[in-house]
Amino acid sequence: MTAEAITCRAAVAWAAGEPLKIEQVLVAPPKAGEVRVKIIASGVCHTDAFTLSGDDPEGIFPAILGHEGGGIVEAVGEGVTSVAVGDHVIPLYTPECGECKFCLSGKTNLCQKIRETQGKGLMPDGTSRFSINGEPIYHYMGCSTFSEYTVLPEIALAKVNKTAPLEEVCLLGCGVTTGMGAVMNTAKVQPGDSVAIFGLGGIGLSAVIGAAMAKAGRIIAIDINDSKFELAKQLGATDCINPKDYDKPIQEVIVELTDGGVDYSFECIGNVDVMRSALECCHKGWGESVIIGVAGAGQEISTRPFQLVTGRVWRGTAFGGVKGRSELPDYVERYLAGEFKLSDFITHTMELDAINEAFDLMHEGKSIRSVIHF
Amino acid sequence: MTAEAITCRAAVAWAAGEPLKIEQVLVAPPKAGEVRVKIIASGVCHTDAFTLSGDDPEGIFPAILGHEGGGIVEAVGEGVTSVAVGDHVIPLYTPECGECKFCLSGKTNLCQKIRETQGKGLMPDGTSRFSINGEPIYHYMGCSTFSEYTVLPEIALAKVNKTAPLEEVCLLGCGVTTGMGAVMNTAKVQPGDSVAIFGLGGIGLSAVIGAAMAKAGRIIAIDINDSKFELAKQLGATDCINPKDYDKPIQEVIVELTDGGVDYSFECIGNVDVMRSALECCHKGWGESVIIGVAGAGQEISTRPFQLVTGRVWRGTAFGGVKGRSELPDYVERYLAGEFKLSDFITHTMELDAINEAFDLMHEGKSIRSVIHF
Repeated sequence: MTAEAITCRAAVAWAAGEPLKIEQVLVAPPKAGEVRVKIIASGVCHTDAFTLSGDDPEGIFPAILGHEGGGIVEAVGEGVTSVAVGDHVIPLYTPECGECKFCLSGKTNLCQKIRETQGKGLMPDGTSRFSINGEPIYHYMGCSTFSEYTVLPEIALAKVNKTAPLEEVCLLGCGVTTGMGAVMNTAKVQPGDSVAIFGLGGIGLSAVIGAAMAKAGRIIAIDINDSKFELAKQLGATDCINPKDYDKPIQEVIVELTDGGVDYSFECIGNVDVMRSALECCHKGWGESVIIGVAGAGQEISTRPFQLVTGRVWRGTAFGGVKGRSELPDYVERYLAGEFKLSDFITHTMELDAINEAFDLMHEGKSIRSVIHF
Repeated sequence: MTAEAITCRAAVAWAAGEPLKIEQVLVAPPKAGEVRVKIIASGVCHTDAFTLSGDDPEGIFPAILGHEGGGIVEAVGEGVTSVAVGDHVIPLYTPECGECKFCLSGKTNLCQKIRETQGKGLMPDGTSRFSINGEPIYHYMGCSTFSEYTVLPEIALAKVNKTAPLEEVCLLGCGVTTGMGAVMNTAKVQPGDSVAIFGLGGIGLSAVIGAAMAKAGRIIAIDINDSKFELAKQLGATDCINPKDYDKPIQEVIVELTDGGVDYSFECIGNVDVMRSALECCHKGWGESVIIGVAGAGQEISTRPFQLVTGRVWRGTAFGGVKGRSELPDYVERYLAGEFKLSDFITHTMELDAINEAFDLMHEGKSIRSVIHF
């Protein structure tokens, strides 16, 4: 059975700084090793907004943005064996080929198999599956979930339990997994450990959940907006701190509060000054700080090397260190088992036509996540 | 048997920037929990020179410097049970009390039990055991090994095999253990791993030895002085690189040479720019860089956070992460078993009277280690 090109609706980013436009897009059938997916829902993430703003030096236009989706396999290309039509899948901007140097190392989730073409907005064969009037439209982060149909390499799909609502587990395609994974996979927080989480957006709140699931003894949530604290506490934060309430640097406040500093800290904002505070609030001898946030182009982190020589560790994480195909399905199972909720994150739902409102809500700080229902 | 004060010869640092002066010093008997040690030999380390120069913000004068010694227990104070008169010992500037939060954590060698008084040049009771004409002379790093006799807390002594020559194993009191430990204890380099070592002084050469003992597959030694390469190769370096031979940044050279970067790197200089190079030559996804060198006061390290978010780890180490009382004796055993040599490091030996020559040789870059024989 050979699939044919289909026309569908998608939100197209024609140029940096302009609103998305809903267009009729031609989606080519999947080639060998590729899969066409009918998107059921997609979260709208800050990274989409970052690229749309034009600040992302790697942004390419025109493109179909969106990378936090859930969908159903509609057609498979030649040689595809790991997923079949009808399977429920979460697209992976960090694929897992299982055979590159990175996958084989067992030490990282940063599969590099298709990185080069993905960074150029193209499928692994160097072409796009999207077009309008014969003109190609670029893919985005290998996902392009702001479209009724999208095409991905087989290695960029996590097959998940069909009983999970895609309108919720789509959030595991980026933000929630990133925050939870940073705590559980990258830092490997143990029961009783103390944790500081900087920034209570979607990632930070997910890190709070991860810390609660890891049975951290103390979960200190830090934000300059007090209105974030209620939900943070509900999710498991034991202390909520607003740096604006203190004259001294927040790292000193936390060191005093914890008799020397926390075992682990997480930066969930992308602010290089906060990254420094997060490192310096860690306990001498063993405290580890994990950078999750993405800083602006060209910005740098700094500290006195004495901070590291006296035992602190500075690391980072992407997609929470989670291997998409081998580990993400288990996150879905834990969600189904009731270990954590996703509904807390979904402040708005809307149709594709209203997608620009989702960006507005985010810019105004009024949403954690808006989810587009297709 | 109560010990009495004894008068002996010691090199006194009267003031920053001045040569040491050999003086007759009164050494009080050990108080409860303390031990008086007859020093047999002491290495002269860059840290001694750093403090003597006046650049060390924590330097206190007048003091008896020296912290890389080997000696024999001459008298013990009340309650001392772990060492006895006649035992061979290596003084520890990082003690191991076994009961503070840091020791009990099992995660660090940075025992904090006596840190405060040690930092003030005093014994744990807040006084000095050294005096000249009734005026106290300060201790240094809790060791003061540039004296025929010195007094240390029991927790700051590693009891070692009596058959080991103290004139050689004194070097395990600082530099050699720091370099070897950084590789084996802090980084835990595994067989086949690739390693880059920046700076081929005593610490860097010890790191080369540690990497060879850990059976690293590739040991890249980096220095701007070609004359260091012969010994580095003899000790196990597989590649020797001089950054001056390249137009591009050394981290790029190493990344190309190793198909993506090394598994572990070590900065053994104290130069914050080199610390950055050492981090950035690590392999994406898992490479770890360990800072060993001590930077000048107020200097800072920096990098783009993307380096960490893509999986590199930045850490540091003090005394190679080695726990002095529980782990250092085993280093002596491995030395005795012939796993590594110390004679390669000892470029000069001299009597206490000639100690200022040792500092001159070091400043002129003409020595790896000078060892004072008492």
